[in-house]
Amino acid sequence: MVEMVHLLQDRICEAISDIDETNYREDEWTREEGGGGRSRVFSEGKVFEKAGVNVSVVYGTLRPEAAEKMGGGHQLEGNDLDFFATGISLVLHPNNPMAPTVHANYRYFERGSGEIEGSWWFGGGADLTPSYLFEEDAIHFHKVHKEACDRHSIADYRHFKEWCDSYFHIPHRNEGRGVGGIFFDDMHGSTKLECFEFVEDCANQFLAAYLPILERRKDLPYTSNQKAWQQMRRGRYVEFNLVYDRGTKFGLTTNGRIESILMSLPLTARWEYCHEVEVGTEEERLLKVLQEPVNWLGV
Amino acid sequence: MVEMVHLLQDRICEAISDIDETNYREDEWTREEGGGGRSRVFSEGKVFEKAGVNVSVVYGTLRPEAAEKMGGGHQLEGNDLDFFATGISLVLHPNNPMAPTVHANYRYFERGSGEIEGSWWFGGGADLTPSYLFEEDAIHFHKVHKEACDRHSIADYRHFKEWCDSYFHIPHRNEGRGVGGIFFDDMHGSTKLECFEFVEDCANQFLAAYLPILERRKDLPYTSNQKAWQQMRRGRYVEFNLVYDRGTKFGLTTNGRIESILMSLPLTARWEYCHEVEVGTEEERLLKVLQEPVNWLGV
Repeated sequence: MVEMVHLLQDRICEAISDIDETNYREDEWTREEGGGGRSRVFSEGKVFEKAGVNVSVVYGTLRPEAAEKMGGGHQLEGNDLDFFATGISLVLHPNNPMAPTVHANYRYFERGSGEIEGSWWFGGGADLTPSYLFEEDAIHFHKVHKEACDRHSIADYRHFKEWCDSYFHIPHRNEGRGVGGIFFDDMHGSTKLECFEFVEDCANQFLAAYLPILERRKDLPYTSNQKAWQQMRRGRYVEFNLVYDRGTKFGLTTNGRIESILMSLPLTARWEYCHEVEVGTEEERLLKVLQEPVNWLGV
Repeated sequence: MVEMVHLLQDRICEAISDIDETNYREDEWTREEGGGGRSRVFSEGKVFEKAGVNVSVVYGTLRPEAAEKMGGGHQLEGNDLDFFATGISLVLHPNNPMAPTVHANYRYFERGSGEIEGSWWFGGGADLTPSYLFEEDAIHFHKVHKEACDRHSIADYRHFKEWCDSYFHIPHRNEGRGVGGIFFDDMHGSTKLECFEFVEDCANQFLAAYLPILERRKDLPYTSNQKAWQQMRRGRYVEFNLVYDRGTKFGLTTNGRIESILMSLPLTARWEYCHEVEVGTEEERLLKVLQEPVNWLGV
């Protein structure tokens, strides 16, 4: 898993570099309590306002409140707070409001020795957050992930799709964060290898799922009003990440590297009081889909 | 208290209207479970990017998780979840990065009948959040509030000043949100009248505390870099309000009016990855003060 996430970080960053015609800033960091990570962030490039791809390998002893937040490990004997965690996490925010923001995260956790049933698990997923809805983009993104799921008996696209819709929900807005994708956690199927093979396959589909969408949208014309709408949608992204996201909360309570945790936030965001969309507009069309999740593949 | 907060809302909104050369949008709203409020928000005026002044009078039955978050009411017999709450809450975000953001909130809470000791309490305070530090502004703001405290035997400026510094602290940044002011909660002194008289006096000092500062700063020249720094400071404001603020959390779990709760958020905010201030700059001077609270009045 450690090797896989590092290789994938290289591959994704190379692809972004090519498209963005810029290079990332890299920070290698260590965590006082054990382990560290490698953060790479692109800023204000040709295509991306901000794009962060982070890998980490951390271990040590959990504080009980962090242990509670992390899920999994239900069948641990005693109160073992030792942990090991590794993963890749990325959020890409394009400049063009027609091009969607994308997030992906694949992770492995272990509590105690990581040998007994329930003491290790995988989690992950990928989801798409457009400011303007192009149905073919949502369908393509879901299709690539469904195909990855279909190749592995432990993965269930329908279940993971619904899990994604319910995880990336903003209750106080009664909206989803985006048009979904897949989300899974506490995955501990029959063997570690079986789980790892699914996670690796899925993670390796990231570029195939996102790049065709980006290519289609990154150079479309747009107005300043459409840019302002994108900024407001980014405000919602901030609301979800700071108020609800489990990974962010986990990071804020485990003395994680703050700039890596918050690299998911967009460069810019906007909050207009009581903003309302007009009937029959593209903005309204997006909101309807966020308020009532769509079964994109009809399965 | 209900009358006081409404009169004060009128007086403050009139003052903002004059300075901003614009008018507010007013929304009267009701809460399904009981009560409601009156929100007034100025947007993109001559002086303010966004300025919200909200009053509310709400009552009903608390959900237990909300009761836990609200504090106070420690000596209630049984598990009485009936409550009554009223208050004024305002946040003003000026356009000019030399002019500080200001927040004030004065509130009264009651649990059960509100008759017995510990079943009613006042809370409140006001605090200043500059992007650029003008020491005389911080001193003036603190001085006006100290004078109000000094007129009432139940109020202790030093205590309330420290409480403000510790409440408006952003642990994950190791920074205060601003240069402080006063903060108090669970105030239930000897009589309700005594508490109310202090809260009323203090709330009525808001304009005297803030307007002279605004007048000095609102027309100062500034650069686009200084504007970008203000946007980043607004990002911190968003972080505090969404992650830590008790009022925001209370609102999000009590089915409050979402636009009124989040009207405290700035119109625009910015997150630059790993932004660092240069040594010897005004930006660094501000950060030092946020990292180590200053005893502005030397008391």
